[in-house]
Amino acid sequence: MVRFGLFGAGFIGEAHAANIHANRRTALAVLYDPDKARAEAIAGRCGATVAERPEDVVGPSVDAVLIASATDAHADQLTMAARAGKAVLCEKPIHGDSVQAWAAVETALAAGVPSAVGFNRRYAHEHGLLRRAVADGRLGAPEAMHIIARTAKAQSPEYLRISGGLFHVSMTHYFDLACWLLGDLPTEIFAYGGGLTDPVYAAADQVDTAMVLMKMPSGALVHIENGFRTTYGYDERIEIIGAAGLGESGRIPLNHFRLSNAEGRHESRYVPDWFERMEHTYMDELDAFVDMLEGAPQTNATLADGLRAQVLADAAQASMVEGRPAHLDWTRLTALGK
Amino acid sequence: MVRFGLFGAGFIGEAHAANIHANRRTALAVLYDPDKARAEAIAGRCGATVAERPEDVVGPSVDAVLIASATDAHADQLTMAARAGKAVLCEKPIHGDSVQAWAAVETALAAGVPSAVGFNRRYAHEHGLLRRAVADGRLGAPEAMHIIARTAKAQSPEYLRISGGLFHVSMTHYFDLACWLLGDLPTEIFAYGGGLTDPVYAAADQVDTAMVLMKMPSGALVHIENGFRTTYGYDERIEIIGAAGLGESGRIPLNHFRLSNAEGRHESRYVPDWFERMEHTYMDELDAFVDMLEGAPQTNATLADGLRAQVLADAAQASMVEGRPAHLDWTRLTALGK
Amino acid sequence: MVRFGLFGAGFIGEAHAANIHANRRTALAVLYDPDKARAEAIAGRCGATVAERPEDVVGPSVDAVLIASATDAHADQLTMAARAGKAVLCEKPIHGDSVQAWAAVETALAAGVPSAVGFNRRYAHEHGLLRRAVADGRLGAPEAMHIIARTAKAQSPEYLRISGGLFHVSMTHYFDLACWLLGDLPTEIFAYGGGLTDPVYAAADQVDTAMVLMKMPSGALVHIENGFRTTYGYDERIEIIGAAGLGESGRIPLNHFRLSNAEGRHESRYVPDWFERMEHTYMDELDAFVDMLEGAPQTNATLADGLRAQVLADAAQASMVEGRPAHLDWTRLTALGK
Amino acid sequence: MVRFGLFGAGFIGEAHAANIHANRRTALAVLYDPDKARAEAIAGRCGATVAERPEDVVGPSVDAVLIASATDAHADQLTMAARAGKAVLCEKPIHGDSVQAWAAVETALAAGVPSAVGFNRRYAHEHGLLRRAVADGRLGAPEAMHIIARTAKAQSPEYLRISGGLFHVSMTHYFDLACWLLGDLPTEIFAYGGGLTDPVYAAADQVDTAMVLMKMPSGALVHIENGFRTTYGYDERIEIIGAAGLGESGRIPLNHFRLSNAEGRHESRYVPDWFERMEHTYMDELDAFVDMLEGAPQTNATLADGLRAQVLADAAQASMVEGRPAHLDWTRLTALGK
Repeated sequence: MVRFGLFGAGFIGEAHAANIHANRRTALAVLYDPDKARAEAIAGRCGATVAERPEDVVGPSVDAVLIASATDAHADQLTMAARAGKAVLCEKPIHGDSVQAWAAVETALAAGVPSAVGFNRRYAHEHGLLRRAVADGRLGAPEAMHIIARTAKAQSPEYLRISGGLFHVSMTHYFDLACWLLGDLPTEIFAYGGGLTDPVYAAADQVDTAMVLMKMPSGALVHIENGFRTTYGYDERIEIIGAAGLGESGRIPLNHFRLSNAEGRHESRYVPDWFERMEHTYMDELDAFVDMLEGAPQTNATLADGLRAQVLADAAQASMVEGRPAHLDWTRLTALGK
Repeated sequence: MVRFGLFGAGFIGEAHAANIHANRRTALAVLYDPDKARAEAIAGRCGATVAERPEDVVGPSVDAVLIASATDAHADQLTMAARAGKAVLCEKPIHGDSVQAWAAVETALAAGVPSAVGFNRRYAHEHGLLRRAVADGRLGAPEAMHIIARTAKAQSPEYLRISGGLFHVSMTHYFDLACWLLGDLPTEIFAYGGGLTDPVYAAADQVDTAMVLMKMPSGALVHIENGFRTTYGYDERIEIIGAAGLGESGRIPLNHFRLSNAEGRHESRYVPDWFERMEHTYMDELDAFVDMLEGAPQTNATLADGLRAQVLADAAQASMVEGRPAHLDWTRLTALGK
Repeated sequence: MVRFGLFGAGFIGEAHAANIHANRRTALAVLYDPDKARAEAIAGRCGATVAERPEDVVGPSVDAVLIASATDAHADQLTMAARAGKAVLCEKPIHGDSVQAWAAVETALAAGVPSAVGFNRRYAHEHGLLRRAVADGRLGAPEAMHIIARTAKAQSPEYLRISGGLFHVSMTHYFDLACWLLGDLPTEIFAYGGGLTDPVYAAADQVDTAMVLMKMPSGALVHIENGFRTTYGYDERIEIIGAAGLGESGRIPLNHFRLSNAEGRHESRYVPDWFERMEHTYMDELDAFVDMLEGAPQTNATLADGLRAQVLADAAQASMVEGRPAHLDWTRLTALGK
Repeated sequence: MVRFGLFGAGFIGEAHAANIHANRRTALAVLYDPDKARAEAIAGRCGATVAERPEDVVGPSVDAVLIASATDAHADQLTMAARAGKAVLCEKPIHGDSVQAWAAVETALAAGVPSAVGFNRRYAHEHGLLRRAVADGRLGAPEAMHIIARTAKAQSPEYLRISGGLFHVSMTHYFDLACWLLGDLPTEIFAYGGGLTDPVYAAADQVDTAMVLMKMPSGALVHIENGFRTTYGYDERIEIIGAAGLGESGRIPLNHFRLSNAEGRHESRYVPDWFERMEHTYMDELDAFVDMLEGAPQTNATLADGLRAQVLADAAQASMVEGRPAHLDWTRLTALGK
């Protein structure tokens, strides 16, 4: 039984708490959140205690720490957990600010604790099937890749600000998927973005919609779109076109009822939003983390994978702001080892 | 160049005339229709002459006769063409009245002329692929078959009456497809029918909607539905479930545009009606007929196949009227040879 | 908190036990099964006690009884529960033998206990959307209905025998859906069946594949197919064609990944079998039962609905054996009231 | 009857000739091609004469000129036709070299002859439905647009070279569609490209695969991918995501047959390649051209539209070569008038 300490009692912290409580191999021992009332509600349901101070989360009653707090608290909590010798599963991104992310990762790697980053989308069934199709050669050498991810509900400008903006908060998922699926590191990136759904984004100097192009060492081209508005449910899909075929990880319809009449054929929207689509991946990610603690190979993203996404997010942001493509230098990351 | 004489200048006669004119291997020499104005309009477009009397269609200027007249004229014209030694392609059904159909077929077979029945749906691409899947064993031994065919526009009660009713006019297509796809003859048939779309059908003692069950010698079960109303375009589909898999010959969407919004995903209707779906099959049927005249194996339905469908239509009609399944005796048809 | 007594610790009994245990409004108090080891394993997981004798299930510690035992035990247990004044939710069919089913229902109705039959498929999302489309008039007056239901794994001949055969064990679901969706009672039924997947069925005088036609008072025609073999996952679908449109309750794909290559486009099978498709409906059915106990209108099938399906199963069986359509007389059922 | 002179007897010249011959409102009078044997074969089939010299195509026997020659001959022929006062329909792109294109267009506009550019994809049914959905507001304000176009067969490096490269030969179609669908002019463009399918492209300093991003004045972002390899048939699709919904102009399956077995569901490839998908658009384009000559509003692309696409192709090429986004200045084009 892996006893968990949890940072964060917000929406995603609560989801993690429920999974830790429901999973037969894990238990929630203690959790911390600045909003004590929320923390207490969750603790009550899961038989956990509420920590008075953050450092109480990394005490002797816990074997592992899950970081699901506000993004700008991640680096400190990761450092704290690593120094206390705890295994740690950190929600993405590692931190909104990459300097802090990098320092925390170096500390954690030096401490030698088991660690992982919560790029949960790796566990979406369809994405996994796409990866297998690349890996076993059924698609041939990849030539082009498309990732489109649009949520039905938007992140607030304030949340974007403390988390490093859209490229860090949201597109890090897709930077990780692109590298994970293609098994390679881009050489160059170019980004456009804008505040299209609401003037509040531009007012806060944030973007709610972005497109990115990346070039891979093989010459393969990658396109990523990320946005905060759909009216038709959650729209996440990935496709890879290779010399031998096309793999498409598609959207998930809400149901399979069709009405046909003089106006045409009518079917349901897609599932409402990202959580309905991705809910199962959080438990899969937790299982994979416990598997790793029990000796299985790591399938969750590593801290280095987390930095990789962070490097791309920084470069995309710079490209967008400066209006030029950014060349990517992976020397420092490669030197980190794994 | 095969020179054709044509009976019939109605909707389908006109379509056949256009194909005969457009096909590089055929020409329209002469045509006959009681409505002389229609015949003349077609003749003008196709460089043909209009026959004063039916017998002028089977004169020395023609090599082959295509019968596309009103159903109750088929048997006489088939007999006339055969006696004149012409190759003959007869629209389905051979005749609304099976006694006359049988007599005409016996005459034609005795005359030894090349002959075929226009079960054009054999040339629908999807049905052909389904047949191949059965024939090459990919579906395994068939266990169940479904045919659904619903037109958007209805046949008039008057047209049904002179043509032998829905089972002869329309369901003969599906009786032929069932036997052709499964490669076997049913042992028993049961039918329900009704006048559901308009009271004029019941008033004329006709049905516009029917369902049929058939039992094959292997035990496989066949279901056919035929009806005269859709609001969503032409609905014809066939499926065969076998021990190894399921083959589905599906409907044809009008286009591939989709609009997704808060109400769901919206796509086009199917193609408007049977002619848009089946237009290409008439030319394919003509090509197959000419191929046969040039020595290729016959792929069009034989006159015996035409009688086979007629036997099933008669049995279905009897079953519906008498409220009991009808056992099928194929002795006479088998004795006909091919 | 509704305390349940449970009859049956087989596959479906275990599923019900897990739901009763997981549901916040219900608890499992006691269960009985002739296989005591199975009962004890379940009792251990759910904090329940194991009854020594059937009558211990209807004791003072329980408010409601769920009958999920072997089909030939249903009638006795239903009678026992009703006499003890317990609310009762009985798995379908009420009994393999309709005489016993009828007697038990009369006893239960006389006792006046809350009661329901577990026609869980009413809670399949797509079927519910189809019902709403009929009810709100979007389809217009129904003209034709198709139900196809094929499982990937077969029921054993022995199980069929003690449960009244395919028409009772399996097709009662679809008889209920047909009446529930169309809101009417058929006037006539005709059935064909056969043992197609394995000679053991014929040897045991059972069928594994059947097709049924029914006629509704409006003239609408209903077709039902039920079979025990697919290689491509669970195949259950319903469609209703009405004067204004077509509603289709479709199959559920296992995932939404597609591979396109020179051989075509390839997608997953459907979900493996009926349980994966219908798992959620058991909890929904339980919730609806508790809602009813708390005063909400009944949405679960009534005992009369259970007899209705049973009457149709008997008539289908008779039609198949005697080779003639069976007329349906609803006088006795109507006299039952509700 | 509009009498046409035709430049070009290659693949697409032959297609245009057949359409001009088949269309009831047009006739092919004369055609020219350096390959006289090809020209004569076509002339024979269409009852046309073969011109000895290019200038014979614009003689008194013709009302209109269709330019379907090698791309590097377009500008001269357009100039020649305009000076002769002929209506002119010019295949895209206007010319591989934009300086020449611009000069020819200025001459044609000064001559005041009716003129159009053959951006035939405007007539693809699905693209037209997408345009209508934008125009009538059903999608709301556009936020993102994707165009993916991949052919099954590649253009040769030599053909690319004389035609201005992939951005001119092929992507001009999609530049035109983007502007036509969104009703606006991009402010900026960025392009990546590569020779991925065969080393001959890199050797010839050409690309066979490219991705482009464009920014619209509204902030909407556009992504275009264009490539020369699929194994699964022709892959052209467009989508526009707006504030109110998503419109998708999809791919066209070769047929609608599906085989389901233990490996999954299998359907056909898409139609083989661009010509099968787009064949109908050439006749539609011709009809629209004749409609315009008869007084209807122009729906074909104007010469200015042709230059618009050319400006974007030049900018994309420059962006790719120079590794920076290119700002777009539309002053000169706007001054052209329409």
